[in-house]
Amino acid sequence: MKPFLSDDFLLDNELAIKLYNEIKGLPILDYHCHLDPAEIAEDKRFKNLTEIWLGGDHYKWRLMRANGVCEEYITGEADDCDKFYKWAETVEDLIGSPLYHWTHLELRRYFGYMGCLSAKTAKEVWEHCNSVIQGADFSVWKILERFNVEVLCTTDDPADDLRYHISLAKSGLKTKVLPTFRPSKAMAVDSPGFPAYTGKLAEVSGVSISDYETLRAALYKRIEFFHEAGCRVSDNALDPPVFEDYEDSEINYICIKALNGELLENVEINKLKTALFVDMGRKYAGLGWAMQLHLNAARSNNRLMYEKLGPDTGYDSILDVPVAVSVNKLLDSLAKTDSLPKTILYSLNPADDDVIGTLTGNFQGGGVRGKIQFGSAWWFNDTKSGMEKQMTVLANTGMLARFIGMLTDSRSFLSYTRHEYFRRIMVNLIAGFAWRGEFPGDFNKLAAIARNISYGNAKEYFSF
Amino acid sequence: MKPFLSDDFLLDNELAIKLYNEIKGLPILDYHCHLDPAEIAEDKRFKNLTEIWLGGDHYKWRLMRANGVCEEYITGEADDCDKFYKWAETVEDLIGSPLYHWTHLELRRYFGYMGCLSAKTAKEVWEHCNSVIQGADFSVWKILERFNVEVLCTTDDPADDLRYHISLAKSGLKTKVLPTFRPSKAMAVDSPGFPAYTGKLAEVSGVSISDYETLRAALYKRIEFFHEAGCRVSDNALDPPVFEDYEDSEINYICIKALNGELLENVEINKLKTALFVDMGRKYAGLGWAMQLHLNAARSNNRLMYEKLGPDTGYDSILDVPVAVSVNKLLDSLAKTDSLPKTILYSLNPADDDVIGTLTGNFQGGGVRGKIQFGSAWWFNDTKSGMEKQMTVLANTGMLARFIGMLTDSRSFLSYTRHEYFRRIMVNLIAGFAWRGEFPGDFNKLAAIARNISYGNAKEYFSF
Amino acid sequence: MKPFLSDDFLLDNELAIKLYNEIKGLPILDYHCHLDPAEIAEDKRFKNLTEIWLGGDHYKWRLMRANGVCEEYITGEADDCDKFYKWAETVEDLIGSPLYHWTHLELRRYFGYMGCLSAKTAKEVWEHCNSVIQGADFSVWKILERFNVEVLCTTDDPADDLRYHISLAKSGLKTKVLPTFRPSKAMAVDSPGFPAYTGKLAEVSGVSISDYETLRAALYKRIEFFHEAGCRVSDNALDPPVFEDYEDSEINYICIKALNGELLENVEINKLKTALFVDMGRKYAGLGWAMQLHLNAARSNNRLMYEKLGPDTGYDSILDVPVAVSVNKLLDSLAKTDSLPKTILYSLNPADDDVIGTLTGNFQGGGVRGKIQFGSAWWFNDTKSGMEKQMTVLANTGMLARFIGMLTDSRSFLSYTRHEYFRRIMVNLIAGFAWRGEFPGDFNKLAAIARNISYGNAKEYFSF
Repeated sequence: MKPFLSDDFLLDNELAIKLYNEIKGLPILDYHCHLDPAEIAEDKRFKNLTEIWLGGDHYKWRLMRANGVCEEYITGEADDCDKFYKWAETVEDLIGSPLYHWTHLELRRYFGYMGCLSAKTAKEVWEHCNSVIQGADFSVWKILERFNVEVLCTTDDPADDLRYHISLAKSGLKTKVLPTFRPSKAMAVDSPGFPAYTGKLAEVSGVSISDYETLRAALYKRIEFFHEAGCRVSDNALDPPVFEDYEDSEINYICIKALNGELLENVEINKLKTALFVDMGRKYAGLGWAMQLHLNAARSNNRLMYEKLGPDTGYDSILDVPVAVSVNKLLDSLAKTDSLPKTILYSLNPADDDVIGTLTGNFQGGGVRGKIQFGSAWWFNDTKSGMEKQMTVLANTGMLARFIGMLTDSRSFLSYTRHEYFRRIMVNLIAGFAWRGEFPGDFNKLAAIARNISYGNAKEYFSF
Repeated sequence: MKPFLSDDFLLDNELAIKLYNEIKGLPILDYHCHLDPAEIAEDKRFKNLTEIWLGGDHYKWRLMRANGVCEEYITGEADDCDKFYKWAETVEDLIGSPLYHWTHLELRRYFGYMGCLSAKTAKEVWEHCNSVIQGADFSVWKILERFNVEVLCTTDDPADDLRYHISLAKSGLKTKVLPTFRPSKAMAVDSPGFPAYTGKLAEVSGVSISDYETLRAALYKRIEFFHEAGCRVSDNALDPPVFEDYEDSEINYICIKALNGELLENVEINKLKTALFVDMGRKYAGLGWAMQLHLNAARSNNRLMYEKLGPDTGYDSILDVPVAVSVNKLLDSLAKTDSLPKTILYSLNPADDDVIGTLTGNFQGGGVRGKIQFGSAWWFNDTKSGMEKQMTVLANTGMLARFIGMLTDSRSFLSYTRHEYFRRIMVNLIAGFAWRGEFPGDFNKLAAIARNISYGNAKEYFSF
Repeated sequence: MKPFLSDDFLLDNELAIKLYNEIKGLPILDYHCHLDPAEIAEDKRFKNLTEIWLGGDHYKWRLMRANGVCEEYITGEADDCDKFYKWAETVEDLIGSPLYHWTHLELRRYFGYMGCLSAKTAKEVWEHCNSVIQGADFSVWKILERFNVEVLCTTDDPADDLRYHISLAKSGLKTKVLPTFRPSKAMAVDSPGFPAYTGKLAEVSGVSISDYETLRAALYKRIEFFHEAGCRVSDNALDPPVFEDYEDSEINYICIKALNGELLENVEINKLKTALFVDMGRKYAGLGWAMQLHLNAARSNNRLMYEKLGPDTGYDSILDVPVAVSVNKLLDSLAKTDSLPKTILYSLNPADDDVIGTLTGNFQGGGVRGKIQFGSAWWFNDTKSGMEKQMTVLANTGMLARFIGMLTDSRSFLSYTRHEYFRRIMVNLIAGFAWRGEFPGDFNKLAAIARNISYGNAKEYFSF
């Protein structure tokens, strides 16, 4: 029996161990996360373990609820220490869960706590970690330095003034903190908030928005503004993906209705969203950006809790709408005029893996290595079996060796160990092929592939 | 090479073997099956192996048909012994099939036959087992006692008088035989039989049914009647799941149409089904019941054979309609008013596993441990790889340690070895995590988790 | 570490090795491929490695594009040798890809080249293989003989005159080269080319086509003509599968509209397609043919490249429409009148595997062994993990021992090593069951099963 979380954690043979040693020190390019740029700018320090670890972490909240913990100890008024104890009680039973691994990787790598968290050790862990947190070496900048984070891309609204990114660029922080252009509100043409949002967009862009052309002009201005601030990647949630062919002539009419807050028919909504998608995609392509598409997330499914706690509080799950036709058509609309940007596709539904893996192949080309990427196992799939499946499908249907690899997608500064988790699983997979005689055991070749997936491919892919 | 079906069958290492020894003697809580309460009440004895083993077992029938056996030897007029020989010929080639394992577990544990069934041994097996069947120790009660079945829940229509359950409660049988409330006919509002069925319901409930309110009142009476008879669980087949928002005001109108046998529009059918679902769910919640939802079964797909043999004769398969939106909305309708009962979700389609695993998390809470359960691998998924996948997804997306575990879902008294099959696979999975260093090798903790999944969690979950 | 592609490639234990040795010499029944009968008839010889290996192989093209190779070196004007070098550069990084295995199996078994292809060895491989290609022993007939191809079924249009098949039947070639009836154009009732196509059909059949009855009569004539030429199998692409109940009376009216090139409504298209499907299915059944149904392929998704290169150039991917309802109804329509032919179902979407695996069971019967087949892992699924999954699902839901096994589905004469690839994976799976104690270790039984899946079952199933 292997001891828990030993040096060769998740590494099944000597070759995997040797490979992991080759790549474990590489810098981190965290090209997609949800960290708060304000907290980075202020080099935030933390009150205690509950604030940094449990506050905002809906992954943990979901499991505490499943374990019968009352909401008071999750998002409620209970004492921080008591909340932590409830988490500790839950953790000790998390057999087979990625949270068990993340938890202990974080305790070890961030806090140097080498034991296991349980009801019994909760007090010891609480005290140990809080004393580390209060030490001089524990702040956001220190964390980014310790984990060798070369680049970190936050997720930002087109109307954002990016003040923190701009000030960080001039600060002494070694990590590049770059914005990501996420036009969710600009795409929400059927939302009651759309007219107000476009008002805000007009203000920050200096473009008076009265029709489709001016809406697009305002968005293009913001894209250029983001570009100047170092942004090289956009993020689009397609839940569900829609595609509807349209005539340029009708889009203006629909857009004016939307700007006026009039009710749109479904087909109009889809046409306007398609037009915006295509026009923004063209702009991304022109600037050499990569475009991320996130599919099949079902958000905020519990209305009672949504009203109490708002979004991103642990009530999201996997959606199962067909994606092949609409995503093919969306990408084809851009490819048709040779203006498809580099694209990264993620589906929350692992039943889509082979659809996505093969769909990427329809739009590769133009001499760009790995132009269309099947993105890393996302969110609920960010597990050992989920990552193994995503990489196996990618290897079967595309080029694993060109994979741009891991991102944290996290809201927590304690998530950088997820890169370690990914790298261990990835090198173990790579090593496994050679170990079983399914690929030559040429160490230099294997190490080059592992280094590229860990770091080199993303470095080449994004023009940060 | 490991011998077939040895003591360490399906157990990959010493830890798994040790864990299995810890839990193998635990009682069985068979919280969902299709056994006939009349046969239990009469402590039925059996004519021969074909009656108890092949009669009604559509799993076996499907494989015999796939093997080219003529219908005469399956559901037809052939001699019982000849039918058995045809099954024996089929079995010997069932490599990789769960039926191969079930067959031999049953031969060993029920009949003490330690060889392998094949054309060659068919005669020997036939004679051996029939002599066991004719012995004094072979009756329904003896079987329930031998397999330590603490509780057994049959599946019953709301209009059923539960006479056998009531008489069994007073009998000397140690196993609690409890009914399950399965309102399929009450939900079949678009069936030609609906008016007649509601007539029957009115009769047994003593409530004259003339509108929605009285229909609901009658169902509530039956739920209370079932509750008195010990029922603590309902069962609902949603094939496919439908959800349609409705106004209370319109439901009555639609219901009266249905009661009169008038043709309903699709949207009306869905509204009435949604209303019934929500109102029965509320009642279950009030009584502390658990609600089982079965998704994505496509039944009776072969009309010619349906006309000859009726339902449940081996012509069912997996359906593939999207479930995320409708199931989320159905559960949210109950959660919105804080009246969601404990719920167990099963989908026949393993492509839904991650959808279901994450969806459960949207409705956990209220301080109930494992309130929403991702149910055990169902029917066609009740296989080694199917169970491993269901438990892996559960471990990834929820709390495996709170899983209420196995049920037989069977029509046969010879299925209790399926609990052994499940327990072996489950402890092997649990042990595997520790064996590979992915969880601490603390035997007491592992044994507690294994005991809970085998027995303790279901005991706590259901209030039998 | 196992050396790459050793004798025990993909074989995990001694039993698997012993089993593989038992079956490796069996003849090949390639019951579905896309080879060109003209090239067989002329016993074609090849110019160089690029022509035979890269020309027309869109699997390789997709990966070259993903690797950033410019189209010039793929389908463009570049020199054959330079094209090959670009492929070599791509191959060396194809870790985990089936193409890595196919490539090296082909280099070894066809050309006796025992090294690994890479940028470094490209020149050596180019020269070595071209000298083999120019040798006397390298032609289509020599290949078919060397790989012991007993039967080979091409894919042919109903209007084809089958001249090459007819002449081959009289030639000295030992391999039976038989046609497959693929009525894609006859089913494309909504295509602008439909009237012209039916004109062609009228001509070759000698039946003047003016309504549904004459259209059917013409198709039946062609089926009979194909039957005389040795055809015993049809092939139907259902992308997506449609089923619409129809009255015989309305079909004629719809058909006449289609014959006149009038625009059909969707429901009319589906009715006419359903009618044609059912009527052709009846005819197949009458002649003892097998019917292949290919599901969930999304073809030609990149319009720009389609306009440049046409179909089958690497722009196809997996579709994700639900298939259970329509495929059940299509098969039931034939089963209802006891005229369902032997049927082989393939879905390109592995998320459908369990749907297909269980659906086959709905239509088994009539005393035909394995009448309804869950077809071999198709196209993008023709990988180690894809084949293991398809066979595992088949073993779980049906009878693996009755599986008719592998086909190449290939456009290349270099694909016969795919049978070796399949056989290794299949015997390893079979051996694994016994090795782990999940099936008795009776070598004769295991060898019989392996022989049947490799050869015997297909031999019995098809009446070639």
